[in-house]
Amino acid sequence: MVKVKIIGATGYGGIGLIELLAGHPEAEITALVAREDVGRRVSEVYPHLEGFCDLPILDAADPRAAEAEADIVVFSTPDRVGMFEAGKVLARGAKALDFSGDFRFTTPEAYADYATRHGKDPKHAAPELLGKNAYGLAELHREAIKKAPVVGNPGCFACSCILGLAPAAKARLFEPTSVICDCKTGVSGAGKKLAAAHHFPARHENMNAYRLAGHQHVCEVERELGLQYGQDVRLTFTAQVVPLCRGIMSTLYAQLLAPLSEADAVALYKDFYKDAPFVRVYGPDAPIGTNCVSRTNFCDLVVSVDARTGRLRVVSYIDNLMKGQAGSALQNINLMAGLPETLGLMRSGLYP
Amino acid sequence: MVKVKIIGATGYGGIGLIELLAGHPEAEITALVAREDVGRRVSEVYPHLEGFCDLPILDAADPRAAEAEADIVVFSTPDRVGMFEAGKVLARGAKALDFSGDFRFTTPEAYADYATRHGKDPKHAAPELLGKNAYGLAELHREAIKKAPVVGNPGCFACSCILGLAPAAKARLFEPTSVICDCKTGVSGAGKKLAAAHHFPARHENMNAYRLAGHQHVCEVERELGLQYGQDVRLTFTAQVVPLCRGIMSTLYAQLLAPLSEADAVALYKDFYKDAPFVRVYGPDAPIGTNCVSRTNFCDLVVSVDARTGRLRVVSYIDNLMKGQAGSALQNINLMAGLPETLGLMRSGLYP
Amino acid sequence: MVKVKIIGATGYGGIGLIELLAGHPEAEITALVAREDVGRRVSEVYPHLEGFCDLPILDAADPRAAEAEADIVVFSTPDRVGMFEAGKVLARGAKALDFSGDFRFTTPEAYADYATRHGKDPKHAAPELLGKNAYGLAELHREAIKKAPVVGNPGCFACSCILGLAPAAKARLFEPTSVICDCKTGVSGAGKKLAAAHHFPARHENMNAYRLAGHQHVCEVERELGLQYGQDVRLTFTAQVVPLCRGIMSTLYAQLLAPLSEADAVALYKDFYKDAPFVRVYGPDAPIGTNCVSRTNFCDLVVSVDARTGRLRVVSYIDNLMKGQAGSALQNINLMAGLPETLGLMRSGLYP
Amino acid sequence: MVKVKIIGATGYGGIGLIELLAGHPEAEITALVAREDVGRRVSEVYPHLEGFCDLPILDAADPRAAEAEADIVVFSTPDRVGMFEAGKVLARGAKALDFSGDFRFTTPEAYADYATRHGKDPKHAAPELLGKNAYGLAELHREAIKKAPVVGNPGCFACSCILGLAPAAKARLFEPTSVICDCKTGVSGAGKKLAAAHHFPARHENMNAYRLAGHQHVCEVERELGLQYGQDVRLTFTAQVVPLCRGIMSTLYAQLLAPLSEADAVALYKDFYKDAPFVRVYGPDAPIGTNCVSRTNFCDLVVSVDARTGRLRVVSYIDNLMKGQAGSALQNINLMAGLPETLGLMRSGLYP
Repeated sequence: MVKVKIIGATGYGGIGLIELLAGHPEAEITALVAREDVGRRVSEVYPHLEGFCDLPILDAADPRAAEAEADIVVFSTPDRVGMFEAGKVLARGAKALDFSGDFRFTTPEAYADYATRHGKDPKHAAPELLGKNAYGLAELHREAIKKAPVVGNPGCFACSCILGLAPAAKARLFEPTSVICDCKTGVSGAGKKLAAAHHFPARHENMNAYRLAGHQHVCEVERELGLQYGQDVRLTFTAQVVPLCRGIMSTLYAQLLAPLSEADAVALYKDFYKDAPFVRVYGPDAPIGTNCVSRTNFCDLVVSVDARTGRLRVVSYIDNLMKGQAGSALQNINLMAGLPETLGLMRSGLYP
Repeated sequence: MVKVKIIGATGYGGIGLIELLAGHPEAEITALVAREDVGRRVSEVYPHLEGFCDLPILDAADPRAAEAEADIVVFSTPDRVGMFEAGKVLARGAKALDFSGDFRFTTPEAYADYATRHGKDPKHAAPELLGKNAYGLAELHREAIKKAPVVGNPGCFACSCILGLAPAAKARLFEPTSVICDCKTGVSGAGKKLAAAHHFPARHENMNAYRLAGHQHVCEVERELGLQYGQDVRLTFTAQVVPLCRGIMSTLYAQLLAPLSEADAVALYKDFYKDAPFVRVYGPDAPIGTNCVSRTNFCDLVVSVDARTGRLRVVSYIDNLMKGQAGSALQNINLMAGLPETLGLMRSGLYP
Repeated sequence: MVKVKIIGATGYGGIGLIELLAGHPEAEITALVAREDVGRRVSEVYPHLEGFCDLPILDAADPRAAEAEADIVVFSTPDRVGMFEAGKVLARGAKALDFSGDFRFTTPEAYADYATRHGKDPKHAAPELLGKNAYGLAELHREAIKKAPVVGNPGCFACSCILGLAPAAKARLFEPTSVICDCKTGVSGAGKKLAAAHHFPARHENMNAYRLAGHQHVCEVERELGLQYGQDVRLTFTAQVVPLCRGIMSTLYAQLLAPLSEADAVALYKDFYKDAPFVRVYGPDAPIGTNCVSRTNFCDLVVSVDARTGRLRVVSYIDNLMKGQAGSALQNINLMAGLPETLGLMRSGLYP
Repeated sequence: MVKVKIIGATGYGGIGLIELLAGHPEAEITALVAREDVGRRVSEVYPHLEGFCDLPILDAADPRAAEAEADIVVFSTPDRVGMFEAGKVLARGAKALDFSGDFRFTTPEAYADYATRHGKDPKHAAPELLGKNAYGLAELHREAIKKAPVVGNPGCFACSCILGLAPAAKARLFEPTSVICDCKTGVSGAGKKLAAAHHFPARHENMNAYRLAGHQHVCEVERELGLQYGQDVRLTFTAQVVPLCRGIMSTLYAQLLAPLSEADAVALYKDFYKDAPFVRVYGPDAPIGTNCVSRTNFCDLVVSVDARTGRLRVVSYIDNLMKGQAGSALQNINLMAGLPETLGLMRSGLYP
């Protein structure tokens, strides 16, 4: 029985993980820590959890929070929280899983580049842990995740882009500066924090691009694709929000270095992911949409080639709160705890 | 291991039951029969089922359909299909569960009344089975369902109304001709069949009442409430469709025969449902909405009293495709097969 | 050319009125006052107004706000703002139109009853104006509105309920304590203020009843229906929110005192509204939904009789931000300024 | 008073044009022709038109259809209808405006290329009219539209892409084979015809790319951009559908031939469109979304440069049923009839 403590338990990421752990046969939640609604049962605030998780929400300073046993401490917190706490977690013999950018990079320089790009302090608070940590995308770093004391859960957009282009990068199919990631997310991708742009009446019949000047996920994607390619990859990234609750559709373009048939492209992708239980690969005629992955941990990839212009085009579909967050987190927890990767995650979606 | 065959497998009810059975530890689907997409794997047509159910869709006339073993045959079919088939199912030693109105009434007269009201042939095709059948609302007929060879799964609106007023009817709290059921359903309540009124652009920012002249669910509700009350109950019923996918919110009004405090009303409801694992009772301040029950088998009841006018008002929330259809069906299958009532159904919803 | 100044210009009501006045041939906006975004052009903040209204947003204390000429000053402000300002408006020779509850009642006692019910100070700040003011529902008070120096624009729910039952009340068709108003509103009815319950992800696939203990609109409806009936009317009111942006559907029930045919009910309603350009009356088979009135000033009424239970049932459809707010406001402005009632308002909706 | 006859009056395009013409001071609808609902008043079928247009729907063979006077006959019909009728219209001294691909190309060869790409007969039925016709995008072909006897209204996706890249093409800013058009449309873009993919429950929380193998709009965009550039332009086009009713967001990418500042790019676009009343140009920080153009004839362009990768990126926002169809049609009708281009079209959107 793996014991899990969740810091930042009442954001979408935290609640999502509670839901998954409540149905997991080998995991137990030992404490929930958050800033809001302290002292109330989590199921009072989120009545859908009634009977599934009735733990109290504790303040970070509450002794019960510190004393709760944990094999894995999950930080579902913003940037620059987990980096100050992970060392203490390790000192107590536990492992840490962080949902922010804090442990997605394995050198202080890479972190600094990331932090600089979106206006944060470039100095990492626990540089001694960088290098020991793993990037928590199991499809690419399964073995590292099993061993690492600290894992950085991927960003949701990044997850969809990396899974969508990793096979082509690994095979060096495309010109490495030609990549365009046109990404669309449902509104839950922006989190639980209220914003005028996400007030129902303003969002309900609206879509828009945002943060055109630069998005924090670019670094993650360029770094991971570069690792696969063995050479720097450069890309243009556009973030767009559309009126769904859940779902990311990332449409990925890259200029092929040589002609490639659609059948060969699909075969290459299927081979790359043959041992990945949560990635499904399709050709351009399959009727795939975000509804095929909604509320599941799957990533569905639709691979096509625009022969007229010599471009590879991959449409990558995930649920931003599952494969893009809590689902990947549980996949990582399973690996970190030595459990089967799919435990508690093998649910089909519900239609419609 | 209970073996289940599904006739009408590709409607919302059929697919919903496939999803639930795919995650059920003690059930196995042995055959899928439908009219559309015959010969294709169900997961080709509904890719979210890939890896969860890959059975072929069979024509009703396909010998494999008839030969497939089954302990329970589910008819997820329109009115006047199951009534012609149920006898054969029983003759083979299996039980039948029907999703239509065919087995919701236990006398030919009650069936005729129901059929007449919505313009169907009043003559039941298997009158010899009426009386042996059970109305499949486990909260009211648990023991009968366990024993009955044929069970009629409730209508979705009816389920929400009956659960919402049964405790008050049983306690004879209200004037039996004073009941008003103001019911709102998400669009999936109208099924998978295409209709101009449910084309996305026409429905997306629209709501309306429909079939004002009379709704087939009235009979079910009046009959079941009358059974609880021990006297005829008469009600006005309004069906309305609102732009959600899933969810029913039924607001139920009844004139109290004597003053009643809100606390007493809530207590009476909690007591009535103390052994019902899928009904949760709340007072008027609980933050309940359809999202608390969405994609689950729960019915959440918010009980209030309008003291100024002496009215009981209960707001009943269900997921029309779960407690209103496939969820209740699995609850019935569990009971019919002698399994624990909650097996494979105790999932929390996912937020948001 | 009627000159209009808007106080509270950047809420939904204010913006809605700007949009309408920008397309009005005989009106001119002279100043916009608000608390937020002061100093910016309104079209910078609301780019859809670019080229239609580019006035700056002024602080209430800005001398330009006070000095701007106005024939009518509109208070699109919360309760207990307009009542302190209306006297000054009148002293300058202008008229006042208030969107809150401040001038919906014509005696201090009626105001006190209203204010008490929803926890506000029961003492009106300008009791000397009560009695001179008019309730701004043109269909019932056209002549009074033309003459009154102060008009209280109706609440959106109240508008739909009063229009839906006034003909039957006038004809004393129903038992006056038997009325039930089951009302559903799109989310814009809750205004522009951010709320967790109206964050897109939380609202998108959710509906719920709220404020079950009592709603401020009850007083307005009981008062106006009582005036038509000539006797006190008592009702149960339920407010519910559904995931549309715009639209109210109020389903209204009342126990008939004598049998009434549907045709007679429809005829009586058509006659009552024969001179009302914005009310359209239909029988139960017309395909009416909120989409028929969306973004227009119409109220569509679907009249039916449930003969089994002897109940009148009227479904009343409006756009909560048009007939329920800015549209009624312009209708009132037209009347107050001696212009044709329909000027600038006779637009069809856009489909779909 | 320009007299307009509409063939195909009950699709989205036809109804949209009726709505606009009903509010137009110098236009009159003389006949409505359609296949469905023949003999009924259009306002019976579309109640929102009640009082705005109550004309009967005529069969094409009805003598009243042929006899109705018309200065302009609008074909809101599928491909290969208008091309058989336009000659007769001209013979009667009227002009024709066609909503399909029939008159979007000015040579038989260009038409054949277009028709071939999406599997239609490549032979145009009225080749003698090609060359006399104009492409109905007023921003690029204003003078030609004024004079042409036949005008081909642009496709909705094409309109958004062409407006978004024409200034950069004209200035030869980008490598002409580097263009990517990543286009997202609301569901009304697929028309009124029922489809399983656009049934509300299937579409409500879903988005997907479609027709990846090729889209008919590519030809239009390549041809028009090529005309501006003075050289062939080649592009990759992706069509995607998202759960809005109305709105297109096209994100357009092109590799710059030389470094360009964002300010210069914006200035160049503003200059290009300085005489276009319906195009508004913004820099990357403006809060533009489809809601700014919804239910209006505007195209809002957000211009940005990704300096890291040397790419121009333009996000083009239109309402697919207005600027993308009926709005552009009225703009063309105004020009064809010698009226001011903006007549009856200068409405702001309504917020929210």
